[in-house]
Amino acid sequence: MSGPDENGIVRHGAGARWSDIVVYGGVARWVEVADDAAQDAAGQIRQVLAQIDATLNRLGSQRNRVLEVTIFLSNLADAPELNRQWDAWVIAGEAPIRACVGAQLSGGLRVEMIVSAVVAP
Amino acid sequence: MSGPDENGIVRHGAGARWSDIVVYGGVARWVEVADDAAQDAAGQIRQVLAQIDATLNRLGSQRNRVLEVTIFLSNLADAPELNRQWDAWVIAGEAPIRACVGAQLSGGLRVEMIVSAVVAP
Amino acid sequence: MSGPDENGIVRHGAGARWSDIVVYGGVARWVEVADDAAQDAAGQIRQVLAQIDATLNRLGSQRNRVLEVTIFLSNLADAPELNRQWDAWVIAGEAPIRACVGAQLSGGLRVEMIVSAVVAP
Repeated sequence: MSGPDENGIVRHGAGARWSDIVVYGGVARWVEVADDAAQDAAGQIRQVLAQIDATLNRLGSQRNRVLEVTIFLSNLADAPELNRQWDAWVIAGEAPIRACVGAQLSGGLRVEMIVSAVVAP
Repeated sequence: MSGPDENGIVRHGAGARWSDIVVYGGVARWVEVADDAAQDAAGQIRQVLAQIDATLNRLGSQRNRVLEVTIFLSNLADAPELNRQWDAWVIAGEAPIRACVGAQLSGGLRVEMIVSAVVAP
Repeated sequence: MSGPDENGIVRHGAGARWSDIVVYGGVARWVEVADDAAQDAAGQIRQVLAQIDATLNRLGSQRNRVLEVTIFLSNLADAPELNRQWDAWVIAGEAPIRACVGAQLSGGLRVEMIVSAVVAP
């Protein structure tokens, strides 16, 4: 992590292929996949939601500042499990918008989420 | 609907699993699926476009302030029907950017759209 | 291209079905697909990355201002080729966030990218 560059962009985990998080205009956006893709869908969903918490914490943000989540599942049959965990995770009444579709994911991934959250009130 | 929360986020239809609409920084974002998923693709596309109009109206926005639409079709063979209805709906010369891909959708949905629109000029 | 409309939206390539680029709040968003969809995946990826460069140039932006890229591949087996070309294209340490999933694409397309980039520092 570092301060904004000359274009006002803040990057966290800036690697050679992608950045882990990009912050611009007070909004952070990132892509979350399970660190351990060897786990089953339930395990990967659990990881991804915990990793989002860790990312929010790293950003000084929190669950009720999440604006939007786009969810890709490699198997839509995992949607009930996703919903079960999601419902326990999300702040009722302060939830983001959410899209959820089935798509092919690489490397054994069962779930991939694109997340945006407010970091500066 | 209510005013902005302490983080400047306005939510419409804020439920336990998601919000219907989130507004931040003068831009509204929402996910639109057909209220009646028992209809065929043409019927669902018709509903979704009408529902977007209703949402725009609820926001005090309008078709020529839509910035971006990402469209997921459960069957890409429905793209010609989508385009036929879309072309009649969109304001020529003031259209949003648009992506359209085929993906698996749950619960009999034939189309799901992620929409963003300017609410504050 | 023209100046902002009464809502502060700038559109480039504003057609009847979509705009090529929409700029709002200092951020441009657009959808890029290969101009020549008759080429194979490697050729289409090459085109799309070159077209993104052309779009950035048209906007007075550049690769290190790209915030986010969502990539749809019609065949995930093309991901290694994508990564090979991507790694040579992206600015290491100033990369965007990136999601990449497999989805059905129309008209022989092998790759479709949704891109956002800062145009006003």
